[in-house]
Amino acid sequence: MSDDDFEPPRPGEKVIELPPADDAGLIFIGRIRTPWADRHDAPRNPMESDAVCTVELDPRYVEGLRSLTTSTHLILLYWLDRARRDLIIQRPRHDDRAHGVFALRSPVRPNPIGLAVVDLLAIDGNKLTIRHIDCLDGTPLLDIKPYFAHSDAKPEAEVGWHKERAKPLPPRGDKG
Amino acid sequence: MSDDDFEPPRPGEKVIELPPADDAGLIFIGRIRTPWADRHDAPRNPMESDAVCTVELDPRYVEGLRSLTTSTHLILLYWLDRARRDLIIQRPRHDDRAHGVFALRSPVRPNPIGLAVVDLLAIDGNKLTIRHIDCLDGTPLLDIKPYFAHSDAKPEAEVGWHKERAKPLPPRGDKG
Repeated sequence: MSDDDFEPPRPGEKVIELPPADDAGLIFIGRIRTPWADRHDAPRNPMESDAVCTVELDPRYVEGLRSLTTSTHLILLYWLDRARRDLIIQRPRHDDRAHGVFALRSPVRPNPIGLAVVDLLAIDGNKLTIRHIDCLDGTPLLDIKPYFAHSDAKPEAEVGWHKERAKPLPPRGDKG
Repeated sequence: MSDDDFEPPRPGEKVIELPPADDAGLIFIGRIRTPWADRHDAPRNPMESDAVCTVELDPRYVEGLRSLTTSTHLILLYWLDRARRDLIIQRPRHDDRAHGVFALRSPVRPNPIGLAVVDLLAIDGNKLTIRHIDCLDGTPLLDIKPYFAHSDAKPEAEVGWHKERAKPLPPRGDKG
């Protein structure tokens, strides 16, 4: 846990008191290996980088991969274990406005579960080679799901606040 | 927890021993209200039903909805609290073959987190009106995320084992 994750709220942001996190328990089933050790180096969204990354599944679960090679895309769920959980209103660095946590894909959320839709390139034993993820190296893995275009692909979807964002994103390197 | 959830494994299925589920803790942030009290009544996938359903967010988190009305589609994560977690190889009822848990969208998985991409129809206070979900009434909510077509929509995705499934699905009512 770096200090950086607990920088004070920005103007317009708001913290709430959370209940104890014990309604249900998670198991870490592996780790995601990426080139990014620090969030200031990581891509701002999964499509921003074409870097080839690796999922290392705990060998205990390797039989759970049977038939998965027939999928072209996967949904990965992972645990954003370095994020605070209590910031209910947040102001993205490159936006003049503050938004509710559920309108954002921020790692800071009551249940810090990250989600990425990735290309599956290969499976070798307990290792999956993937592309299009933006998490830090060593991020704990929670789940792997096959992506079904029939129910998961909504190319017509829009996020109005994001389209209307006042400031365009700066070039990569100056991270928000 | 109904007995039904612990029916014996089918031929070709396999159970493994799981570690204790305590690597991380979840908070339930609301409940999903649907017409389905029993999994035998529920749709087999989120697109099978057009029923209008409701997300009841705990009022503690209502400010987290700010700006969310500008999204047309949401990703909901929820806790499949009536499912066993240790069945690593599973045979869907309407398939002759057994598959690994990570090749399936079964509620039975090491971390039983369900995911649905839903249409957002309206938000009124702490209640969200949605469409295209297949979970049981009262399912605990874990997260709401905006759906970004840019990174989440992969209409070209394929799941080979599902396309080649030997038996076509029977009419609704005889559930697998």
